[in-house]
Amino acid sequence: MSGAFDTALTRALGIKVPVVQGGMMWVGYAELASAVSNAGGLGIITALTQPTPGDLRNEIRRCKKMTDKPFAVNLTMLPTINPPPYQEYADVIIAEGIKIVETAGLVKDVVPKFKKAGCTILHKCTTIRHSLAAIRMGVDFLSIDGFECAGHCGETDIPNFILVSRARQELGNTPFIASGGFADGQGLAGALALGACGINMGTRFMCTIEAPIHHNIKDTIVKADENDTELVLRRWNNTNRLFKNKPAQEAVKIERESTTGKFEEVQPLVSGQRGRQVFLNGDPDFGVWTAGLCIGLIKDIPTCEVLISRIEREALDTINKQLSYVKDRSKL
Amino acid sequence: MSGAFDTALTRALGIKVPVVQGGMMWVGYAELASAVSNAGGLGIITALTQPTPGDLRNEIRRCKKMTDKPFAVNLTMLPTINPPPYQEYADVIIAEGIKIVETAGLVKDVVPKFKKAGCTILHKCTTIRHSLAAIRMGVDFLSIDGFECAGHCGETDIPNFILVSRARQELGNTPFIASGGFADGQGLAGALALGACGINMGTRFMCTIEAPIHHNIKDTIVKADENDTELVLRRWNNTNRLFKNKPAQEAVKIERESTTGKFEEVQPLVSGQRGRQVFLNGDPDFGVWTAGLCIGLIKDIPTCEVLISRIEREALDTINKQLSYVKDRSKL
Repeated sequence: MSGAFDTALTRALGIKVPVVQGGMMWVGYAELASAVSNAGGLGIITALTQPTPGDLRNEIRRCKKMTDKPFAVNLTMLPTINPPPYQEYADVIIAEGIKIVETAGLVKDVVPKFKKAGCTILHKCTTIRHSLAAIRMGVDFLSIDGFECAGHCGETDIPNFILVSRARQELGNTPFIASGGFADGQGLAGALALGACGINMGTRFMCTIEAPIHHNIKDTIVKADENDTELVLRRWNNTNRLFKNKPAQEAVKIERESTTGKFEEVQPLVSGQRGRQVFLNGDPDFGVWTAGLCIGLIKDIPTCEVLISRIEREALDTINKQLSYVKDRSKL
Repeated sequence: MSGAFDTALTRALGIKVPVVQGGMMWVGYAELASAVSNAGGLGIITALTQPTPGDLRNEIRRCKKMTDKPFAVNLTMLPTINPPPYQEYADVIIAEGIKIVETAGLVKDVVPKFKKAGCTILHKCTTIRHSLAAIRMGVDFLSIDGFECAGHCGETDIPNFILVSRARQELGNTPFIASGGFADGQGLAGALALGACGINMGTRFMCTIEAPIHHNIKDTIVKADENDTELVLRRWNNTNRLFKNKPAQEAVKIERESTTGKFEEVQPLVSGQRGRQVFLNGDPDFGVWTAGLCIGLIKDIPTCEVLISRIEREALDTINKQLSYVKDRSKL
């Protein structure tokens, strides 16, 4: 590893390459988080993938045995009828000495707790308005999630060329990470050009050797193209970008054609539990699972080490290529 | 003007800055085309904005008097019930000695004609599949139009971080321009990072001193944000990204709620002739008019000279800033 980059992100987190692994449900386990961190990026354990706060404690301890590099824990707080014990998850994260957290959703009760514990907070947003509110709460980095991203992409459909540029215009001195649509070093260089200090990648990391999901799903990602995602649950203002498989397409059809508009009609199709099984049994049609538009850019299943080193090299080559377009370097 | 950039686009077209003005209906007149070309970019006259081929001849001649720099003519061939005499427009373009053309739509009958006349052809596409077909026809540059773009953005909703990256993966040696979502030099640097040799901007050029449209419309663009566009006519697979004004919102409402699905119900609202009047009378609600997502990035009404010089400077500063993130430049 060359460790060629030095941005606000690498400095604040103590990582070598400005690449953050997305906090993914049923994927963000210790195996992947440690592999990403060992390769020089920031690995992330997804708290809610663990059934109880006690399980999260064990998972964090397992990860510590697998890497001596910094890693983070993601805590996403979505509105739900039976919310998990979010505060207890937060308490475990702090008690285990985790110093970097990725937050998303309705986090106003946990941000002060993490700040008091001296954590660096990376907060995910899909709009500039929510980003500004998060800055007022005191988060350290925004993670700007464009229309391209997997899962909850928001309702405004603003892609990253616009959203990241707006972040540069509006977020003042708060550094931001570009998230959604990234899979390679050209993307990292592009994000740096727009003003980001790094990138966050989810789908790309699902398709690595160390991602603890069934090989058939990684193969499915490699074979897919940029037209293989589907926006589901828009009707209920809860848009999710999912892999375009049978249940996702069926859910969209019901969503479009239902005269009642009752969520119950699609609920069995969009069950997260069935999505979890997909990653275990390898049947891409068994349930819905999230995938970002960068699924179209992914062509192989490397190790995290190979992937992150390659991204670093590609980003350096890209900057060099841009430089080669400048006729008179004295103008720089 | 510094003329600092040297890309496949600047070399092939003999322009100083790798910025192409979009061929816009009711905006792409000689005033704007000559101003963009004089400022070092590529100005474009929109052929179909002229009522007859004879009018196009006059407009080209008028433009020649206003600039001695290269400029292009856009010929867009959309399926329509009463098609304009496309071949006659093409004949005028060739007879007037225009050596750069921008094409879009169903152009298979005019591409051989332009090639035979020695024109450099920039062809606009919203998908990789159509781009590959255009390369087989023999076009010289692809102009890749992402989901962000104004007007016909296609039906696949693939933003430029993905679509331009896919172009780099798929288009082989054919150079390509990134189009849609661009308004500044950071965007130009980002496009170069993803592999493009330049950018195409429409909405940004509408909001310049020389754009021959009413000042109120330019003011409306400055005041708008990234949420002020609307996708209209999706139901008929003819999606247009329009400024979110009263008729556009009304058309979307009818489109969503109509039980008959008859195009006639929205037709009066989406009339191009009323859109043309908007640019003349300055009433942003008089009819529908196209605007890209970069409307959210635009904050002023500069001259084309100021705008293009600024973009060049911003792009150079951006590349310099990316360089500053590289710890050890020997790795480049």
